[in-house]
Amino acid sequence: MKAEIITIGDEILNGQIVDTNSAWIAQRLAPLQIHLVQITSISDTKTAIIDALTNAAERANLIIVTGGLGPTKDDVTKHAAATYFNTTLINDTKVLEHVRGIFRNAGFEEMPAMNVHQADVLANAKILFNDVGTAPGMWVAKDGKFFAFLPGVPFEMKFLIENRVIPELSGIKSETTVHNAYILTTGIGESHLADRIADIEEDLPEHIHLAYLPKIGMVKLRLTAVGNNQSILEEETQLFVERIVSRVGKHVLATEDIGFEEVLVKRFTEAGCTLATAESCTGGAIASLITSVPGASAMFNGAVVAYANAAKMHMLGVEEETLKSFGAVSESTVRQMAEGAKSHLGTDYAIATSGIAGPGGGTAEKPVGTVWVAVAGRQATEARVFYFKNDRMVNIERSVTASLQMLWDLFQKEQ
Amino acid sequence: MKAEIITIGDEILNGQIVDTNSAWIAQRLAPLQIHLVQITSISDTKTAIIDALTNAAERANLIIVTGGLGPTKDDVTKHAAATYFNTTLINDTKVLEHVRGIFRNAGFEEMPAMNVHQADVLANAKILFNDVGTAPGMWVAKDGKFFAFLPGVPFEMKFLIENRVIPELSGIKSETTVHNAYILTTGIGESHLADRIADIEEDLPEHIHLAYLPKIGMVKLRLTAVGNNQSILEEETQLFVERIVSRVGKHVLATEDIGFEEVLVKRFTEAGCTLATAESCTGGAIASLITSVPGASAMFNGAVVAYANAAKMHMLGVEEETLKSFGAVSESTVRQMAEGAKSHLGTDYAIATSGIAGPGGGTAEKPVGTVWVAVAGRQATEARVFYFKNDRMVNIERSVTASLQMLWDLFQKEQ
Repeated sequence: MKAEIITIGDEILNGQIVDTNSAWIAQRLAPLQIHLVQITSISDTKTAIIDALTNAAERANLIIVTGGLGPTKDDVTKHAAATYFNTTLINDTKVLEHVRGIFRNAGFEEMPAMNVHQADVLANAKILFNDVGTAPGMWVAKDGKFFAFLPGVPFEMKFLIENRVIPELSGIKSETTVHNAYILTTGIGESHLADRIADIEEDLPEHIHLAYLPKIGMVKLRLTAVGNNQSILEEETQLFVERIVSRVGKHVLATEDIGFEEVLVKRFTEAGCTLATAESCTGGAIASLITSVPGASAMFNGAVVAYANAAKMHMLGVEEETLKSFGAVSESTVRQMAEGAKSHLGTDYAIATSGIAGPGGGTAEKPVGTVWVAVAGRQATEARVFYFKNDRMVNIERSVTASLQMLWDLFQKEQ
Repeated sequence: MKAEIITIGDEILNGQIVDTNSAWIAQRLAPLQIHLVQITSISDTKTAIIDALTNAAERANLIIVTGGLGPTKDDVTKHAAATYFNTTLINDTKVLEHVRGIFRNAGFEEMPAMNVHQADVLANAKILFNDVGTAPGMWVAKDGKFFAFLPGVPFEMKFLIENRVIPELSGIKSETTVHNAYILTTGIGESHLADRIADIEEDLPEHIHLAYLPKIGMVKLRLTAVGNNQSILEEETQLFVERIVSRVGKHVLATEDIGFEEVLVKRFTEAGCTLATAESCTGGAIASLITSVPGASAMFNGAVVAYANAAKMHMLGVEEETLKSFGAVSESTVRQMAEGAKSHLGTDYAIATSGIAGPGGGTAEKPVGTVWVAVAGRQATEARVFYFKNDRMVNIERSVTASLQMLWDLFQKEQ
C-alpha cells in the first residue's frame, strides 16, 4: 500500500519545529508493508489543505494528516476537510465530555469556550478516540482511499497511531509487499564502497533496489525488495546481504537497522564491558546519545560534563599544571580526562572530549572547530585532534561521531 | 517572495533520517522576507522529481531542491532536472579537478570512476561551487522562477546556502515583505492563553496573523504581518505584542524567537549565577541542551551523569543508606544529587533527575515514567515527582522540560 503524510501548520514551514513525526510514522508503517511515497508540509489555509488532500489521494491509498486540530483560531483543518469530503462537522457528546474531563482533572472549574469545538468531528468519520489529549483523531474511508486526521503533538499522534490507526490498517489487505534489509558500515566512504560492490549491484534484479544512506563517518546500505511473496523476498535479499558482507566484512558494524550507538551498547553489554565519558565541548551529547538506547544502563556507568576547568580538576583529576601548561584543549588534558573518567567512574573504557565548538572561544593557534578526543581502554589510551571548522551544532555532532569511531576501533583492537 | 523546498531521497520517506535541513533553511530565508509555502519530500525517481518541480513552480518563485546529488546509482536528480528544463548535462572541468583534489587530499591515489559524474552539471545552470564537498550546487533562473539544487548532507547544504544561495537571493527584489514577532510563554495552556487574549486577537487587522505554537510546558505566540512597508509592519505588530505582554505578563519568558534553554543561559549570565546538573534518567540531555547554546560556558560549570549507583555516591556524595532505604528513584536521592552537584561543581543552582525512562526497569510501585526532579538554589532545594507514562524518548524529553521549568520557578523566586 502507498501512503502519504500531510503535515499542517506554519511552525514547520517557519522552521520553528523540525518535523520528527513523519520519520516516526514512516518507521511504524514499514512493518505493515506500507510504503511512504511523499511527505507534504503545508500552511494551515483552507486552499492549501484541500489541494494537498486532492493531490495526495491521486498518488496514495492512505493519507495521514497531522496537525491543525488545536482549539485556537489558526487551525482550519477540520473545516477544510469537511469541504473536501463534501460533508459537515458535528459536535460529538462523548468527545466533548472527555475534553471537559481533561480540564476538570487539571483543576480548572470551567473549560474555555473555544474548546467546545474540539469535539467537532467530520460527519463521515469514525472517531479515533484520543485518551491522552483534547483533539480527537478521525478516520475516513472513501472510494477505496483511507484518511487519518491526527493531532500534531508528537505524544498524542503516537498514541493514536499505535492504538487507533494501526488496528484500522491491520484490517485492510494489500496486494504488494515490501522487504527491507540493512548493512551498517563504517570507515569506508560512499564512493569507495560503491566501487567495491559494483558487480554485486549490477546483479540485482529489477525488483530489488540498493540505496546508500551516508551519515558522518558511516554509510548505511538498504536493500528494498518489492513483490508479492514476503518469504521469497526475504530469501532473495539475504543472498545479496551475504555477498556484500563477505566483500566488505571488516567495515560492517551491523546487518540490522540500528545506529552506531545501539551497536556499541549491544557489543559492550555482550562483552561485559563498561563505559564512561568525560565531556567538555560535547557537553553531554555523547552520554545523551548512549543513554537514549534502552538497556544502556547495563554498560554505561555515567559521565562528567566538565565545562569549567575546576570541574576538570575536581571531578576528573586533571592536574592544574597540565591545564596551565597546555590549556584545556590539548592532548595532555584530554588524556587525563579519559583516564580520570575511567578510574573515577570505575569503567573499562572512557571517552573524553575537549574542543572549541564555537562560535566564540577560538584563537589563531586553536581556531573554532579544534577538538581533542581521547579514548582510554583496558590496555591503552589513544588521543587525536580534529579540525572541524563548522558551526557549533555540527562541530558537536562531528565530535560525537569521531569519539564513537575511536572508541569502536580501540574496543575492536583490545577484544 | 514565496519559496518551496523539495527534498529528494528515500531516507526521509523511510524514516531513516529526520529532515532537519528544511527547518534550518526556513530560518535562514525568513530575514530575507522569503516565506516558505510548502515542503515536499519525495523519492529519487525521475517521475516524482519532475512532478514535484512542476507543481512547486506553479506555487512559488524560489524552489530549493536538496539531496539526490551523490555519486551512486540511486541518485537521479540531475537527469530528472535536465529533462524538466529541457537541457543537457555537461562535465565541468573546474568541478572535476576539485573532486579529484578532495580524493587526493584524503590520501587516495585514484578517484572512483563514478565520481567523475559528480562534475556533471545542468547546461543551463550557474555552478554554486561547493568548497566543502564533492557535489556541486546549481542555480537556474527560468521564466522569473529561481531553482537551487543542493546536496542533502547538512554541512554542505548549509555552506552553499550561506555562501552561494543567499548572495544570489540578495540580488533579487521582492514586492511583499513579512515581519514576525514572538512571545514565549510558560505555565499557561494554549486554550487558557487564547481565552485571555481573545479580544486582542479580535482586533488584529486582516494582514496580521496570530499563531499558537505549543510545546511541552510552553506556548510560543507568533504574530506574522504581511505588507509592503517593513517599518510600518514592525510598528503595527509591536503594539499588539505590548498589549499581549501587559495582559499575560507573568507568563512571558521572552519576546524574541528563542527557546527556554536560551532564556536560561541569558538570564543566569545576566544575574551572574552558575548552574550544574546531576542526571540519571535524562542521561546528559539537560547538559547537552544547555551547552547547545553559544556562550553557555559563562553560566554552566558542568554535569555529572550518574547512571550507576556507585557514580551517585562517589561523584555526588549521595549516601549509601539513602539509596538502600529509598532507592535511586526517590525524593531523598534526588535532593542529595542536586545538593551534591551544587557543592561538587561549585555552582549557585543545580538540577537533579532520577527516574525510570523505560521500556525496562518499571515496578508496580515505581512504574515506567516515574521521575523525581530536584532543583537546588541559593536558599532552598525543591523536589517533585512526575508520572509521564510515555516511551523512553518522550519521558526523557518531558523530564528535561519539567526540570527547566522547576529551575526557572526557583530562580525567579530567589531573585
